[in-house]
Amino acid sequence: MKLDLNQPISGKVAIVGAGPSDPELMTLRAVRLLGRADVVLVDALVDSRVLTFCPDARVIDVGKRPGGRATGQEVINALLVKEAKSGNFVVRLKGGDPFVFGRGGEEALALAEQGIDFEIVPGISSSVAAPQAAGIPVTHRGVTTHFSVVAGHGAGGVDALRPAWRDLAKAGGTLVVLMGVKNLPHIVEAVMEGGRDPLTPCAIVHRGTTEDQYVVEAPLAQLVDVAHAAQVASPATIVIGEVVNLRQFIASSEFDHAHQEVG
Amino acid sequence: MKLDLNQPISGKVAIVGAGPSDPELMTLRAVRLLGRADVVLVDALVDSRVLTFCPDARVIDVGKRPGGRATGQEVINALLVKEAKSGNFVVRLKGGDPFVFGRGGEEALALAEQGIDFEIVPGISSSVAAPQAAGIPVTHRGVTTHFSVVAGHGAGGVDALRPAWRDLAKAGGTLVVLMGVKNLPHIVEAVMEGGRDPLTPCAIVHRGTTEDQYVVEAPLAQLVDVAHAAQVASPATIVIGEVVNLRQFIASSEFDHAHQEVG
Repeated sequence: MKLDLNQPISGKVAIVGAGPSDPELMTLRAVRLLGRADVVLVDALVDSRVLTFCPDARVIDVGKRPGGRATGQEVINALLVKEAKSGNFVVRLKGGDPFVFGRGGEEALALAEQGIDFEIVPGISSSVAAPQAAGIPVTHRGVTTHFSVVAGHGAGGVDALRPAWRDLAKAGGTLVVLMGVKNLPHIVEAVMEGGRDPLTPCAIVHRGTTEDQYVVEAPLAQLVDVAHAAQVASPATIVIGEVVNLRQFIASSEFDHAHQEVG
Repeated sequence: MKLDLNQPISGKVAIVGAGPSDPELMTLRAVRLLGRADVVLVDALVDSRVLTFCPDARVIDVGKRPGGRATGQEVINALLVKEAKSGNFVVRLKGGDPFVFGRGGEEALALAEQGIDFEIVPGISSSVAAPQAAGIPVTHRGVTTHFSVVAGHGAGGVDALRPAWRDLAKAGGTLVVLMGVKNLPHIVEAVMEGGRDPLTPCAIVHRGTTEDQYVVEAPLAQLVDVAHAAQVASPATIVIGEVVNLRQFIASSEFDHAHQEVG
């Protein structure tokens, strides 16, 4: 449901996408809801500048940091319910879009189960925005009519994800892999197994849309070595497909502050 | 490049995603750039309420309407170049995201060729936001780790698109088809050919995120009949996959003003 901002908002929740980090890429709706929040639950992926939009809210950091202390999903769900039931208007602010690997669906289910009203606000997903900021359109007339977005790591490990990497590669078009830096060798192997040409152009966009953005390019068969040499770190978006060739024409070197062109 | 709003912006272009129609789902960046525009070129898919953000700009409608008079892409490209070369700051406002079937890549190439500076601003894509507004997360832990977005019509006709529909279906997960209402029977046929269970849950979201939103649900094998009976019209977003089952728990009937539940 869309919450009515002309009324007091008590005991309700908004699950809000914060976009890919640049605060200017937040939606008007996200900013308006933040301005009304009593409590804001934020992820590690949310840029701290975004919090200037909710100066009066109580901010709770539930960020899951690799290797560090993490708040489990069950605990986050319970916290959302508890804060809403205490009469607060709670904004659950998530990096990117809440429904693109954001586990927003699980939070929505937890709220629905408790009969708590909530609104879901989409956010700009880095699956499209990170390639775009590197000058790569995920679709392009005459090049491809489709793109796929897949997780690069997950609960079941490499074995559980490999069939998706391989079969989506087999379907051609643009393949975007999120959170895939650690498993890059496995991903490349599965994509080759899916029959993609070893010369397929690929790019890895580190912290796309931010001032720290840098981009590494290489043909599929060399991607692992080139990424290793460039010490590409998470978070990064991997793009595989012929659309990567458009980057040389569309990308502006001015935007890529620490632009690295390799391979 | 990101244009510097503290400087006069003359002879430059911003290719801006307007999102899926609700003006509140525009980004702050989009609104700021519109406020500085001398000339705005808009699509048919852009909601006219968005134009309140650029009251002083000269607005040129280049919308392509099915069956009606259309402005060709070459003409739009030439217009962008001409208006920028005349010293204007031109905003090219496109429905959804400029790089998700938005032909923004072609416009970017045309500008780059002429040495005209431009910025690309992502928009909320209906490929994710329309399912979301209907209570369907395109990814969900334990259900799927990937989603694919594919055009439902295009230059080469059904024959050119069928392999992508079939092979993406074969890869499992969530399949989102944009602009697919007219070719729905062909799409369903290809998806079955890709081996998907005839009972796979499907939904069609008409004008997702708007007040006119309505949703039709049916198993894959009945989707064509159910859509026909409900007289589903364009623009609509087709969602195929197990995630559609989550809708019954997440969706709020309050949001679906003219909600139709069939099948």
